[in-house]
Order: sequence, then C-alpha cells, then structure tokens
Amino acid sequence: MPYITMPPELMPGTPGLMRYRPETGRPLSQLAEVLHRDAHSLSQADRELIAARVSALNECRFCLYTHGEVSAQQHSEGRAMVDKVLSDPSSAPISPKLKALVTIAEAVQESGHSVTQDMVDTARNAGATDTEIHDTVLISAAFCMYNRYCDGLAAVVPEDPAAYIPMAAMIIREGYSTCATGH
Amino acid sequence: MPYITMPPELMPGTPGLMRYRPETGRPLSQLAEVLHRDAHSLSQADRELIAARVSALNECRFCLYTHGEVSAQQHSEGRAMVDKVLSDPSSAPISPKLKALVTIAEAVQESGHSVTQDMVDTARNAGATDTEIHDTVLISAAFCMYNRYCDGLAAVVPEDPAAYIPMAAMIIREGYSTCATGH
Repeated sequence: MPYITMPPELMPGTPGLMRYRPETGRPLSQLAEVLHRDAHSLSQADRELIAARVSALNECRFCLYTHGEVSAQQHSEGRAMVDKVLSDPSSAPISPKLKALVTIAEAVQESGHSVTQDMVDTARNAGATDTEIHDTVLISAAFCMYNRYCDGLAAVVPEDPAAYIPMAAMIIREGYSTCATGH
Repeated sequence: MPYITMPPELMPGTPGLMRYRPETGRPLSQLAEVLHRDAHSLSQADRELIAARVSALNECRFCLYTHGEVSAQQHSEGRAMVDKVLSDPSSAPISPKLKALVTIAEAVQESGHSVTQDMVDTARNAGATDTEIHDTVLISAAFCMYNRYCDGLAAVVPEDPAAYIPMAAMIIREGYSTCATGH
C-alpha cells in the first residue's frame, strides 16, 4: 500500500504517481517520451532495454517489467533476447556498441563517478555517437530517479507479469505522456 | 573534460548539459522548477537543502555547491544553518518535521526500498503532509538523476565555491527553466 493516500482508481506504479501530482507528472512523462520515443539512432527497443536493465539493478519490479515488456514487444529478436540482456548483458548476443552502452548505463546506476574514459572510448570505438552516449547516461540516471520514486513511495506494483502486457501495449500505442497524464 | 564534445561557451554542470540537448533539457529544467519553486508549504530554502544533502551523499560537487548556495542565499537562518544540515542533519537545529523529511530523502538516496513505514509515520506525526512526503521522495530521487547525469558525463565543475554565488543568484532571480534552457 502506498505511503501516501492515493485514489484507488489511479494506475499502478509510476504512472499512478504522475497522475496523482500532475505538476511533476508532466515533465516526468515528457522526459520519458523524449528518451524512449523521439527519433533516434538507437531503436526504442534498445533504449527500453537499457532502462529495464538499470531497473533490474535497482530491483524496481514495476519499471523492470514495464520497460522489459515494451522492449520485448518491439524487439526484432523478441522476448528471448530481451531476457538474455536483462540477466547477463556481457554474454548476450548483442552488438559491441549496445554492449558498451549497457556497460556505461550499469556504471551510472552505481554512481556518476563510476563511468570511466575507458568505457566511453570502448563505446566510441564500437561506433557510438555523442548523442547515444549522452542519452545512455541520461536514461540510466533517469531510471535511478523513476525507480526510487516508485519504490520510495511504495506505489502499487502488480505481481503478475501478465498485467504488464496491456500496459506496455498502451505505451507503444499512445506514448508516455498519455499513459502518465491521461492527455 | 566532458566525455562528449560540448561547445565551450555552454554553462558548466547540469545547465550546460540541458542546453547541449534541449529536447531533454526542457523537461529536466521544468521538473526542477516545479520541485523547488512552485508555491509550497515547504520553503524553497528547505527544498534546496534536501537536494543539496542528497547531492552531498552522491558526492556531486556541482549540485551540492549550487543548491547549497541557493538555499543559503534564501534561508532565514543563513549559511551557517545550511552548512550544519549538510554536514550532519541529525544534530542540526531544524524542526522535527524537516529532520524527518531529510531522513526519508537520505533513505531514497540509498534505494527506494530503504524507505520504511516508520520513517513515514515519524514525518507524519511531526506534521508532514502527503504532498510534502511525496515531494521529498521525488526531490531525492530527482537528484539521484541530476547528480548521475552531471558526473556520468564528466560535466565541467568549477572548483571555486565562489563561482556558484552568481549562478545561485541567477536561479533565484530567473528560475531553473531560464537558467537551463536560456528562455
């Protein structure tokens, strides 16, 4: 049960919190919209996968299941690949560039100071652009926020992974702004 | 030196990064604006102080000095009080309510799962409202993002504390949106 009194009709997890306090919900959902869905050289599936991996490290079940599911529904290689990356990115059959970006995201999850020049050079040598490096750092940093926001207020988190399937479909169809703020 | 190529005329720290990528800079600065400066039962000085304390725990010098300075310039009891809270909130002569909120913020900095019902009850018994508890959790979570964003990209961080005085004055005068996006 959440630590604050929330109307029971609100959605679970972070979207419910965003609707509870729309003044902060608007920028929070707009940030997610840009990070995941704006035109980009990284696919939405890969950006969602980075978010899901960071959420796994932060043990935020709501964000892990939501963004893992959004990635799985959009990934050309499907759910099996997403599960491999989530459990052990270093051995997953992904491109060297995505592997290097996931390594940076994992460092950011620990601390901003854990990112090294070596990690950045590895990503750049594998073809990562400045925007891809910037957005990887910001996606990881942002999920260190969303995860803490969700769990720090003990938001409602559905136990059944099946509950995340329609939520992910709604995000893919309508985007984060609509999902989180209702318009 | 930042890990990505940034025009040298950009501001240091997080505002420079927001101007580097305005698509994400806009929601990031709007979130800071609402969290710190919207009308609220907590003073801006106290909300900035919570942000500064979280930044100290994350060892983010840029955000610690910036928000510590904004708080000091606005705090009715001045810089000495701000320094006391930043170094040891538990012994600082602040209200039981603010102390309980800082305790929640410190827990969130560690992990969303570190917040306990007991911490929330203590804050509530000291007079904290749902909005104050919500915003404390979100301020701490948001600075776990801003801190990682700044240090994870090795943004320029002025060494001299005096450099933060005019920056804080600009934030107080013009707000976060102007500071970070230039309009």
